[in-house]
Amino acid sequence: MKLKKELRKFKGFIFDCDGVIWRGKNKIEGVDGVIRYLRREGKRIVFLTNNSTKTREEYAKRLKLFGIDAKIDEIVTSGYVTAQYLREKYGRNLRLYIIGESGLIEEMKNFGFTILSEKDAWHRKIDVVVVGLDRKLTYEKLAAGAYAILNGAKFIATNADPNIPTEKGLLPGAGAIVSFLKVSTGVKPEIVIGKPNVEIMNFALKILGTDPENTLVVGDRIETDIIAAKRARCKSLIVLTGATTLEEVKKSEIKPDFILESLLDMVL
Amino acid sequence: MKLKKELRKFKGFIFDCDGVIWRGKNKIEGVDGVIRYLRREGKRIVFLTNNSTKTREEYAKRLKLFGIDAKIDEIVTSGYVTAQYLREKYGRNLRLYIIGESGLIEEMKNFGFTILSEKDAWHRKIDVVVVGLDRKLTYEKLAAGAYAILNGAKFIATNADPNIPTEKGLLPGAGAIVSFLKVSTGVKPEIVIGKPNVEIMNFALKILGTDPENTLVVGDRIETDIIAAKRARCKSLIVLTGATTLEEVKKSEIKPDFILESLLDMVL
Repeated sequence: MKLKKELRKFKGFIFDCDGVIWRGKNKIEGVDGVIRYLRREGKRIVFLTNNSTKTREEYAKRLKLFGIDAKIDEIVTSGYVTAQYLREKYGRNLRLYIIGESGLIEEMKNFGFTILSEKDAWHRKIDVVVVGLDRKLTYEKLAAGAYAILNGAKFIATNADPNIPTEKGLLPGAGAIVSFLKVSTGVKPEIVIGKPNVEIMNFALKILGTDPENTLVVGDRIETDIIAAKRARCKSLIVLTGATTLEEVKKSEIKPDFILESLLDMVL
Repeated sequence: MKLKKELRKFKGFIFDCDGVIWRGKNKIEGVDGVIRYLRREGKRIVFLTNNSTKTREEYAKRLKLFGIDAKIDEIVTSGYVTAQYLREKYGRNLRLYIIGESGLIEEMKNFGFTILSEKDAWHRKIDVVVVGLDRKLTYEKLAAGAYAILNGAKFIATNADPNIPTEKGLLPGAGAIVSFLKVSTGVKPEIVIGKPNVEIMNFALKILGTDPENTLVVGDRIETDIIAAKRARCKSLIVLTGATTLEEVKKSEIKPDFILESLLDMVL
């Protein structure tokens, strides 16, 4: 196994997860071998996902299940960075209402925020409505979030991915939920934390300790991964195992530096 | 009781319901008396609502409950006109998947369409996904709709009202659901049937039998009622008992012909 010649110069690698490492519950062929090879070669690696449904610990377990060792600090999720953002900007003393899954709620609890329930949202003051993908979404949850936003709560999106590649095809993502709330309240999110936001990229680069020009971003989505790479002045590689087809890549005005069928094709 | 002078010339009246006749479960003060007065004066009346959650029969019952008599033919809902549109354009032999409430489903059944379930949507061919307000919305319902649209089903919106005025304030409307599906699939609806679509207005005008210049549209929303009135060349009156404040009316570039606090202020 050998890295393709044009990729050898990179010292740091930022890997997206959904559509790159796995698709739904299934590992994408050969990714574990490539990651192990990169580690043996002394490359630095960060896994950076817009998906906020799991904690970093849960992502480490999942990677492990697929034969990939990763330290907690090598995993960056939009949920984790959202918690960092809120603590730095507004402090720990915040009452949150979360539209998101248990991993996002746990990540926020770890930072010491007060988490209020759907029922609370109708009669208690909410400081921030945090929105991530929630596959247990209901009208009541959405209505409570809209109500809090209309009554002055800040509206923060962990990410705005329109959909998520799974074994069933593309299923709705956090971006669809964000759009629902935006339309129903007339309020835009104060910030979308996930890619293509350059700050989450700088967060990942700081962990890597590599210069942008020596860092390759590997993702499956132009409007998040590839734009984020360009904003952070990294090089970018798109794989076709996720949300984007070759046709779509060719049509796009935004060009990744490299196009490969899958992560496995990074090696000879 | 007497109609205000500047309103006496109108022969036909098109009344919106949510935010004009009622707000949530509560009747808006005095509306029944005004409607009875207009009928005594020989004015022609249609109730035209973008709300697709109920059948026309259910709306007649609801109006009756508030002291307003209306024939079925005087009630036009976006759900009913959606059924008309589908039958005229594509015939009766359609398999529909509906994101909407029981009233919309019943309205579609009345027209003889085949209604498929959320589970069906994952493995049977769907011709049309019909979207209206659904307060029992779940992620699974939305995901099934997105899946059908991505697999070639037509995407038809009964209306795109961003929210709905209730006693609890503005709650999310069908437009938020439409936006969710638009973002997650990348597909726009083929048509939005409800106001401000001019065709639903022409439908109402045909029932009234009055000329547009002699017809007054009474609504609570600029982007639906008032724009619809202008497109149909009717005059328009906005009431402030629903989704729009006086400040918002004043800021808007689109000007209604008349502004009143409530429908009751139509009379002296």
